[in-house]
Amino acid sequence: MPKISEKGTILPASAIRKLVPFADAAKERGIKIYHLNIGQPDILTPKGALDTLRKANMDIVAYTNSAGNLSYRKKLCEYYERYNIHLTPEDIIVTCGGSEALQIAFNVCLNKGDEILIPEPYYTNYNSFAILSDSIIKTIPSSIEDGFALPPIEDFEKAITPKTKAIMVCNPNNPTGYLYSKEEIMKLASLAKKHDLYLFADEVYREFIYDGKKHFSVMEVEGLEDNVILLDSVSKRYSACGAREGMLISKNKEVMKSAMKMAQARLCPPYFGQIFSESAIDTPDEYFVEVNHEYDRRRKALVEAINKIPGCKCPMPTGAFYTVIQMPIDDSDKFCKWLLTDFNLNGETVMLAPATGFYSDPEKGRKQARITYCLKIEDLLAGINCLKEALKVYPGRTL
Amino acid sequence: MPKISEKGTILPASAIRKLVPFADAAKERGIKIYHLNIGQPDILTPKGALDTLRKANMDIVAYTNSAGNLSYRKKLCEYYERYNIHLTPEDIIVTCGGSEALQIAFNVCLNKGDEILIPEPYYTNYNSFAILSDSIIKTIPSSIEDGFALPPIEDFEKAITPKTKAIMVCNPNNPTGYLYSKEEIMKLASLAKKHDLYLFADEVYREFIYDGKKHFSVMEVEGLEDNVILLDSVSKRYSACGAREGMLISKNKEVMKSAMKMAQARLCPPYFGQIFSESAIDTPDEYFVEVNHEYDRRRKALVEAINKIPGCKCPMPTGAFYTVIQMPIDDSDKFCKWLLTDFNLNGETVMLAPATGFYSDPEKGRKQARITYCLKIEDLLAGINCLKEALKVYPGRTL
Repeated sequence: MPKISEKGTILPASAIRKLVPFADAAKERGIKIYHLNIGQPDILTPKGALDTLRKANMDIVAYTNSAGNLSYRKKLCEYYERYNIHLTPEDIIVTCGGSEALQIAFNVCLNKGDEILIPEPYYTNYNSFAILSDSIIKTIPSSIEDGFALPPIEDFEKAITPKTKAIMVCNPNNPTGYLYSKEEIMKLASLAKKHDLYLFADEVYREFIYDGKKHFSVMEVEGLEDNVILLDSVSKRYSACGAREGMLISKNKEVMKSAMKMAQARLCPPYFGQIFSESAIDTPDEYFVEVNHEYDRRRKALVEAINKIPGCKCPMPTGAFYTVIQMPIDDSDKFCKWLLTDFNLNGETVMLAPATGFYSDPEKGRKQARITYCLKIEDLLAGINCLKEALKVYPGRTL
Repeated sequence: MPKISEKGTILPASAIRKLVPFADAAKERGIKIYHLNIGQPDILTPKGALDTLRKANMDIVAYTNSAGNLSYRKKLCEYYERYNIHLTPEDIIVTCGGSEALQIAFNVCLNKGDEILIPEPYYTNYNSFAILSDSIIKTIPSSIEDGFALPPIEDFEKAITPKTKAIMVCNPNNPTGYLYSKEEIMKLASLAKKHDLYLFADEVYREFIYDGKKHFSVMEVEGLEDNVILLDSVSKRYSACGAREGMLISKNKEVMKSAMKMAQARLCPPYFGQIFSESAIDTPDEYFVEVNHEYDRRRKALVEAINKIPGCKCPMPTGAFYTVIQMPIDDSDKFCKWLLTDFNLNGETVMLAPATGFYSDPEKGRKQARITYCLKIEDLLAGINCLKEALKVYPGRTL
């Protein structure tokens, strides 16, 4: 049998999915699971955009432009103007989800051994794309004590080596739910400028911001146009994770020229999703007002309930729909598995994502888990109630 | 400005698309262009499958299984049974087009410097995926003289080095339109078995076979289960190139396990396209009978017309909807560009894909071009008439 590649050997299993077999087994035993582990919103996808797709003339589902339909890219420029981001269609390549945008960006910008600085905890799937592009993720620790704010910029600067090629930031952050301020983004921008680094920004949660705060995009930084690569997606924005419509955005002509070659090699982004996504840009503001109001309620109820559990704490997230919580346990991998294999509260249990997968050193996440608030409040609180009762009886509890 | 990566520097421009700016300029001058250069069928996409998508309940366009919806993969097993290919859903990962299947296969199977043997001319985009996986394509020449049949198997064996890791075949072939026989596939299979190589097969044109011939899939070879990787797509099958629904198929458990990790990292294949593609499997046989009848007529009319042009020749293709023609010219790159910049016949011209891009050594394709028969006969013949007249006046003609 021919051997698989070294990359094939070291690709990590998805941190979020490795518990799935145990969840499936629990379901087979009739256990109801509250899924606080994945970022799959229960919010309805905008009906108007779905209707546009349903009614579209689609006689021949042909290849689109490799960069995405021009009409869609023009409409995207309108969308970004609302956020003070000024683009032309040439600055945008439509991709198969934010994931493909990441893959293209890493391959086009990074050489073997090049280092990317990322505040941790961080979105685990970046690891796979780093491995595929032979680049290396180096993490700068942030802390639950200050709500996972940006680590001191000196920590980033100290970590820079001759191999450092990029800084990466997810804003608002997955998994922490932290919204970086304009000042924090400007610090990263100055550092990127000073050391001539790329600044990759994953801003797929731009719409989900609370407490009247405002999102500041890396694309708004003046004078950094050749360094900034924006990675975006409609997945969360329109509760359309399955549409697989992302965007790779940059003003750097060299990057975009090479990215177009990759885009042409894979022919085009999905046709149906582009029709949907172009129309979704006209989703009325009320949709987002309602959705954000709902997430805001969930967020407050969740954090309040968690902080009432003895030994548990979590900061109030200011964006996205995640938070990282600290628990009085020995090992979050064991605990999250135990919740599925050995625990139930009247036939119900809760599924969390162990935070070990969100750190470069799993030890740092041993007592933490990521919780999403993608479920309605009643289910969210029922899940947290399971967590509370579980922590009373879990053999590895430390309180 | 940060530098782009080495890969970013060497990624080739799409051979098929590099003439597009000249075509656009010609159109701006009011010239009508017959596009015999691209494999975008003018065949209608099956209405039944589009209606299924239109009527589907899509309240939340959620992530699907990373391997694709189970219902779709079960249905795909039914589809493959019709071709004597016996699969279970675990053998299939649904991808974003055949392109993503290729990317995953190359990354999971090949290490830096590993060599893939491919008969040439070959589908150019393989180059980009080889570059992205740091692997190397080595070509084994086939010849227009014998219709681009499989080169002697000894030529493959002679090319094997310690770095050879795979043989790749596109059957029926793009760009030549040649259908490899069962005997030819068995020769490749034996060689793969003997030297423990992967056998990658791109079989996206499986439905388009003429002269009553029968397609023999690499998946039908017994005892080669751990070596065979099938790359497939609905793009051409249902004239749905934009749906971006491909499949990576293998019985090799190690390969599939790693491939699943890549699949999970990018989350899932497109949701809308899966609904469409699952339903498309129920497209009535008459659809394919009609489509094949149409392609068969076009093929014969095209080849007859080409072989009547002084100094031109092309073999009769037995599959897909391409053929490679030989022309009495100095340089196909120059000629194909000249057709767009300097020639017109009563305001019309023809666009061809120079074959230079389909060979590892462009010299081998200097007098050749790929022609597709994706247009209706009347347009096809009008395009060939332009070619005939152009060859009478082209300054670089050699006849």
